[in-house]
Amino acid sequence: MKYSYDYLRKFTIDVLMRMGFSSEDSAQCAKVFLAAEIRGHSTHGVIRIGDYYKLWEAGRINTSPNVRIVRETPSTAVIDGDGTIGMIPARFSMELAIKKAGEVGTGWVSTYNSCNFGIAGYYAMMALEHDMIGITMTNASPLVAPTFSAEALLGTNPIAIAIPAKKQPPFVADFATTPINRGKFTLAAKKGEKIGVGFAQDKQGHPSDDPTILEKGGSMLPLGGDRVHGSHKGYCMGAIVDIFSAVFSGANFGPFVPPMVAYLPLLDTQVGEGLGHFFGAMRIDAFQEADVFKTRMDKWIETFRMAKPAEGQEKVIIPGDPERENEARIKAEGIELIPQVEGDLRAIAEKLGLVFG
Amino acid sequence: MKYSYDYLRKFTIDVLMRMGFSSEDSAQCAKVFLAAEIRGHSTHGVIRIGDYYKLWEAGRINTSPNVRIVRETPSTAVIDGDGTIGMIPARFSMELAIKKAGEVGTGWVSTYNSCNFGIAGYYAMMALEHDMIGITMTNASPLVAPTFSAEALLGTNPIAIAIPAKKQPPFVADFATTPINRGKFTLAAKKGEKIGVGFAQDKQGHPSDDPTILEKGGSMLPLGGDRVHGSHKGYCMGAIVDIFSAVFSGANFGPFVPPMVAYLPLLDTQVGEGLGHFFGAMRIDAFQEADVFKTRMDKWIETFRMAKPAEGQEKVIIPGDPERENEARIKAEGIELIPQVEGDLRAIAEKLGLVFG
Repeated sequence: MKYSYDYLRKFTIDVLMRMGFSSEDSAQCAKVFLAAEIRGHSTHGVIRIGDYYKLWEAGRINTSPNVRIVRETPSTAVIDGDGTIGMIPARFSMELAIKKAGEVGTGWVSTYNSCNFGIAGYYAMMALEHDMIGITMTNASPLVAPTFSAEALLGTNPIAIAIPAKKQPPFVADFATTPINRGKFTLAAKKGEKIGVGFAQDKQGHPSDDPTILEKGGSMLPLGGDRVHGSHKGYCMGAIVDIFSAVFSGANFGPFVPPMVAYLPLLDTQVGEGLGHFFGAMRIDAFQEADVFKTRMDKWIETFRMAKPAEGQEKVIIPGDPERENEARIKAEGIELIPQVEGDLRAIAEKLGLVFG
Repeated sequence: MKYSYDYLRKFTIDVLMRMGFSSEDSAQCAKVFLAAEIRGHSTHGVIRIGDYYKLWEAGRINTSPNVRIVRETPSTAVIDGDGTIGMIPARFSMELAIKKAGEVGTGWVSTYNSCNFGIAGYYAMMALEHDMIGITMTNASPLVAPTFSAEALLGTNPIAIAIPAKKQPPFVADFATTPINRGKFTLAAKKGEKIGVGFAQDKQGHPSDDPTILEKGGSMLPLGGDRVHGSHKGYCMGAIVDIFSAVFSGANFGPFVPPMVAYLPLLDTQVGEGLGHFFGAMRIDAFQEADVFKTRMDKWIETFRMAKPAEGQEKVIIPGDPERENEARIKAEGIELIPQVEGDLRAIAEKLGLVFG
């Protein structure tokens, strides 16, 4: 069934407030959940409320966090997320990066003791209205095997970068450092299809096209797929995200990142607190007059958009175009939830004395 | 035949000085050419002297540059490379990034009016001895088609990141944003082999395994290969390198980047000057006590190195390991040059009144 943006936003706020989050924090988190829905990344949308609810039930989420700066220089900071839902320290961190960029040209913030923060692109895009470039990275629980590894040591570790233009809409790249996201495995399994070559391996490290291989001890592959096709480069990207997000800040890194799901126990070995994020903001006028820069970005975007398409293709896509088109359409048409998600939300509502639907 | 490190370094200095570069600039450039040789990236080594020589003959290289800061904030700068060989503004820019990181935690420099600078990793590694993380990117002449494009709009646009550790050698990633480099095409063509699937397309945008397809109007594919395997993510990475290196600084971007080879004319349309680079330095103690950070990096490196290898593989490789092993071996054994490169160098030597070999 379809739900309006406002209805789902209000419901998400109500759930979070019943869990004990402040009204301001609840409103902020709801905005990020809903941004995922309308940008077409529903795998990071309200479907995740159930995961957070279970983590909260298990006592693994602090609903009254004291998010704070623990170290800083004029252009950097490290933030303690105080064990809360990721959206709260993420907004705090990105706002601080933007403030520092205003003062010294750029700001860079690494955050620990946090949890999944939703879509990375949301925070990168916060920089745009300040005429800044925004950068976001986060590590995540291990699902991805580096090149030549039998074990999953990295998360899907996404990178988002938002760059303002003048007449053109902004360039917004937001991508995991793997060829596909986990949702594609679930979908293929439901449909009884194979996932194809270049996406996964079994627990010995042999290529696998079984969509249920992750539940059998297998791993996802980094962007590139195999060594011949450059998987060591995808591994490098995932590693850099992990190091910037977690080695910098004091979070758990690599295989030590805590699971997002409450049914998995916390690991015995911890090398830090929670998981980690990394945020950057660069003032465009630290490099060029803002107007000159944005005119040059327009030229960049127009050049790529107008390039001759490959035979059978319509056009070259500018990063951020599909999400922006989704945003307009889904906000108007409503957000479609599958019965399973509706059922989850109904059950949570009931436990919290709310009504869903 | 094999040549010693010192012989080739001295010869390179002599060539550059005869072309008119200062002894200091010549020594600096020679170091970068030789670093490529001993790190095993001979495609960026002395084989390139011929390209620069021809650009110089064509009057496209300024041998007495006034490399200078044209804009700056406490954490950023834009550098005019004054149309010289890339190694000169690249060292200047990275030193400035390091200086700014010393002052405000991080330094970020975008450089225009430059030319190919050799291996990106060289500059990123300059940060290591300062207990900093180094980052380098550069754009390059168009060879790579974005996802859904029939045209090459991006270079192989590499990214290098160097991160210090304590007992472990540093993490040094240095990779093009394509599955393979151009040298693999040349090699396959020489051997009469196909290049395999996922690396190139013809001029209509259809997949091609012909190693000579680039000379026939074809293009290389971004990391990921095709859309299903995430080539839009490789395209995003190449685009970000291009924008940071050239839209920031005022260099030519995308398809407007000037060719590296003198036999191709300069394009009629210019959107900036020369090509562009991007440099970053982050002081590790801007995030953590240096000793704490480096101990955490040791743990990261050891965890990945000791992971269970995939069946049939020896171990998980830490970025920078293969190059470091090459460095020790090649410096001891000497640098092997193929007859074609020897011939080129002999011809250049003769024209400049030098002797090679």
